[in-house]
Amino acid sequence: METSNIVWHPHPVTKDQRSEQKQQRPCVLWFTGLSAAGKSTVAGAVEEKLYQRGHHTYLLDGDNVRHGLNGDLGFSDEARVENIRRIGEAAKLFTDAGLIVLTAFISPFCADRQLVRALVEQGEFIEVHMDTPLTECEQRDPKGLYQKARDGLLKNFTGIDSEYEAPEAAEIVIKSAEFGIEECADQIIDYLLANQIIYAKTE
Amino acid sequence: METSNIVWHPHPVTKDQRSEQKQQRPCVLWFTGLSAAGKSTVAGAVEEKLYQRGHHTYLLDGDNVRHGLNGDLGFSDEARVENIRRIGEAAKLFTDAGLIVLTAFISPFCADRQLVRALVEQGEFIEVHMDTPLTECEQRDPKGLYQKARDGLLKNFTGIDSEYEAPEAAEIVIKSAEFGIEECADQIIDYLLANQIIYAKTE
Repeated sequence: METSNIVWHPHPVTKDQRSEQKQQRPCVLWFTGLSAAGKSTVAGAVEEKLYQRGHHTYLLDGDNVRHGLNGDLGFSDEARVENIRRIGEAAKLFTDAGLIVLTAFISPFCADRQLVRALVEQGEFIEVHMDTPLTECEQRDPKGLYQKARDGLLKNFTGIDSEYEAPEAAEIVIKSAEFGIEECADQIIDYLLANQIIYAKTE
Repeated sequence: METSNIVWHPHPVTKDQRSEQKQQRPCVLWFTGLSAAGKSTVAGAVEEKLYQRGHHTYLLDGDNVRHGLNGDLGFSDEARVENIRRIGEAAKLFTDAGLIVLTAFISPFCADRQLVRALVEQGEFIEVHMDTPLTECEQRDPKGLYQKARDGLLKNFTGIDSEYEAPEAAEIVIKSAEFGIEECADQIIDYLLANQIIYAKTE
């Protein structure tokens, strides 16, 4: 790739200004976990709570990204890596815009998540491990995918015939089999408050 | 590509809520024009004016996108089409987030710009044609690219040995050879006010 004619322009409006305007510290809440672990559900609940507190957010998930930005990608190993890379780069643009971005993807491999962590600024990548046992996920199976995978109709399904590499040091670990959706979301809000990503509002 | 297991989830927080929160109508201000026509400069000035009015914006340009999201793409015809497609999809995500997104890319081909227009909602795509004569751009030549192209050191350079297809019905036409940067930016702000993308603030 040629890059010799590319120069980085400073923008007139800075990331700090965009964040200050929104009264928050931008970050990426990167949800990772098995299919049916509750990633999208809990991310959605967190987004709603942040919205109600007046925060500016955006949720990227496999469904909206797969239909658009990554609509050209299939499901090969190479395509899966590129899928996560682009999502990471998109998340970086959203944090640059001053937003709190939530992402909900299985993202089974440590190396891919590490790549995204390295893309954004120190302290901006908050890994949220939806630590839900496989047995629980398989029992939920809202789309019947585990059943299809067990029947051999879906190949390379994470947890069945493709590995899920659990994070070793996720910033937040959520046990969605033990707590309700609201409680899980509150645990994440508490983390954001404790780490001054957002601030308690006094009425 | 398999899509049979992909289902679109409605998000708890809607585009309308995100836009309402920001007191603006999201849109894409898509700047198009020759190299050195003033796209990034005027887009930056518009962003600054919008910020000063309290609006929530983000500027995508060839430089920040080429280093990240589209860092894997070269400069073949195919790569150029994919470049614009991804930028369009990213812009769509930003409008979904409720932002006014500005993009500054040569984007020389009508078909590519039309593709992006079709991605977003009716009325959201605002094409800004930086209608600056080639002679003027070549005279400015801040990076010496026209000179390199004339010397045969750069191939497929828009305006020299690759066509620029001017928009036939751009929403906004800016004559950057006739007006200063501030005036050009004000013309765009006036359009946004007249079309109720943003609202006049009464102090």
